Amino acid sequence: MTRSITILGATGSVGRSSVDVVRADPDRFRVEALVGGRDARALADLAVALRARFAAIAEESAGPALAEALAGTGIACGAGRAAVLEAARREAEVVIAAISGAAGLEPTHAALGHCRVLALANKECLVSAGTAFMAAARATGTVVRAVDSEHNALEQALRAGRREDVDLITLTASGGPFRETPAEALARVSVRQALSHPTWSMGAKISIDSATLMNKGLELIEAHHLFGVGAEALAVLVHPQSIVHGLVHWRDGSVTAGLAAADMRVPILNSLEIDGARLSHAAPRLDLATIGTLTFAPPDRARFRCLALAEAALAAGGGATTVLNAANEVAVAAFCAERIGFTAIADLVERVCDVMAAAARPTPATIEEALTLDAESRARAAEILQDGTLRPI
Amino acid sequence: MTRSITILGATGSVGRSSVDVVRADPDRFRVEALVGGRDARALADLAVALRARFAAIAEESAGPALAEALAGTGIACGAGRAAVLEAARREAEVVIAAISGAAGLEPTHAALGHCRVLALANKECLVSAGTAFMAAARATGTVVRAVDSEHNALEQALRAGRREDVDLITLTASGGPFRETPAEALARVSVRQALSHPTWSMGAKISIDSATLMNKGLELIEAHHLFGVGAEALAVLVHPQSIVHGLVHWRDGSVTAGLAAADMRVPILNSLEIDGARLSHAAPRLDLATIGTLTFAPPDRARFRCLALAEAALAAGGGATTVLNAANEVAVAAFCAERIGFTAIADLVERVCDVMAAAARPTPATIEEALTLDAESRARAAEILQDGTLRPI
Repeated sequence: MTRSITILGATGSVGRSSVDVVRADPDRFRVEALVGGRDARALADLAVALRARFAAIAEESAGPALAEALAGTGIACGAGRAAVLEAARREAEVVIAAISGAAGLEPTHAALGHCRVLALANKECLVSAGTAFMAAARATGTVVRAVDSEHNALEQALRAGRREDVDLITLTASGGPFRETPAEALARVSVRQALSHPTWSMGAKISIDSATLMNKGLELIEAHHLFGVGAEALAVLVHPQSIVHGLVHWRDGSVTAGLAAADMRVPILNSLEIDGARLSHAAPRLDLATIGTLTFAPPDRARFRCLALAEAALAAGGGATTVLNAANEVAVAAFCAERIGFTAIADLVERVCDVMAAAARPTPATIEEALTLDAESRARAAEILQDGTLRPI
Repeated sequence: MTRSITILGATGSVGRSSVDVVRADPDRFRVEALVGGRDARALADLAVALRARFAAIAEESAGPALAEALAGTGIACGAGRAAVLEAARREAEVVIAAISGAAGLEPTHAALGHCRVLALANKECLVSAGTAFMAAARATGTVVRAVDSEHNALEQALRAGRREDVDLITLTASGGPFRETPAEALARVSVRQALSHPTWSMGAKISIDSATLMNKGLELIEAHHLFGVGAEALAVLVHPQSIVHGLVHWRDGSVTAGLAAADMRVPILNSLEIDGARLSHAAPRLDLATIGTLTFAPPDRARFRCLALAEAALAAGGGATTVLNAANEVAVAAFCAERIGFTAIADLVERVCDVMAAAARPTPATIEEALTLDAESRARAAEILQDGTLRPI
């Protein structure tokens, strides 16, 4: 059976892994559309290699370069916001939503109702606007499947029982590159060090989020929306080998866990199953005898305050997670630009959350409301960045 | 909802754990019948405590003692084969079949068709007569659920996908008390040492089987019958902590694992779920952060030849596993009686399998055929024991 597929964010990290999956099994997929950000050459190459029907590039000014690169290929193309939304709205069985950051919100939302399965790698749809996004998914009858290794593992594990019998859902965290770094040394770590993730090869934003453990906090918020469980039934466990991705504890004492090699192609391939029919993976089997040892430890919220901040935002509800996410994006960009130090990421997020919490923030009821709150939070974050009180790198 | 339940083998190790489960949640269960082996006093005490309707003791001569102990309680009772079969045939929602050894075959088989769920702890039903037993279960519409921690974990993990997408099923083994004992020292280990299992508290027969790894071999044969997979899709992994009990590898590279504390009450409680509604377990949650480290290694078939013999019997098919099981029961009894040494268990099993394989042995088509082949194999084993060529303890 051939599956029609669209990849939003095809030139990014998850997008590239998705392309690998499609290329490994070309008879299985028909590529409806590909969306890229700025790199017209890379997007055109992928569109040709995958014989896509349509290619859209977000950066308006890259349109002519894309059109030129695709001239004579028969592949239609466009540039700018309208073209991206057109790509998202073309009918496909599966849309892989892998545009990162708040920029992914609008096109990912646009795909709802135009695919059977939305394989979601963009975190902001759930963290910034989860209530509105999941309501739209339900209203359009679109199945949302997580491409994150943790949520994908948990989705599979949750099939072992009824939702009302779930006692606890645990997401594992590698612990990042600073798992064993003393608290006093964290303020001085460099951007390069923070980008060196021990088990996963990922984009810059998510690598920094993994180093602060904010990534795990954002994933708790995603799990809340995906699985309909409250903060009290969600936990984090540090597991440096990144083999066990998630565990479901059932009320009868049984635990069902999802495992896989630390390879994004596995959750991507799994999210492409249709009606429970799994596709074949060419890579070798996970071999625990060779891996030998798996270790587990509680997370250290004193050293990794971003995790505690995310948990507090999830517990607070309302617009708190939207604010948290916006502040974190600004803070990570400032760290990557070497404007603030590593521990100042948590400082900035905390201050923005505190300032914004002073006024009651209701849960954004629409994507637009989420984007408005997101913009306001970014503005507050920028103000605090300007005042020079944050610890420099 | 109250579940009616019968426990065959109530005074044994798994039976006692089952009784614990029932006593922890007395409003949930109505005990239809209890069956014990020889200890009339113990059986009567359990019958009174659980307010059973009927109690049967296998040992005919213990009948008067049981009747006396239950006089005036209103609990009906009986003794001998007919009474045991009557207990097995009383209608109940769940029958826990925990009579160990070949003695459990007939009463467990008798329960088929008289319960919705047969929670199977007796290994011989599947190892000795698996084809006939599973056919009878299908014919009577009885759901067979394994009470073994490994199979119970796997049953739950298998819910995460379709049977045709299973790539490999792995059962873990603690490795037993001699996991790190050098080959040359194995011949001299004592019965007491072999009975000291590192993670599980169990009966004598299964403790010795765990020490030789024959137990894992028997479980592979059970898995073959329960899950309908061939020897080539079944694997064993040594995991000394006994926390991960089984893993299902899917064709798409995902792995779903079943975990639980090394406590038989967990798989028993799980096997008592009706229509997927799990019961509540009072014990603390499994806490991997406290456990800290899980290790995995391949099994050593050179030191633990019983595992290789069981795998060969499974691959050979026909009556080979019936022969293997009978020979092993005789060998373990001889070791426990200090008539042969620890490594002679594998020697005896191997010789009986070789002798019996000389004549082609078809798959037993009925329980009676299995019992006939079982008896013949035991006779051969006894002859070899008599000839004095096996290594003494």
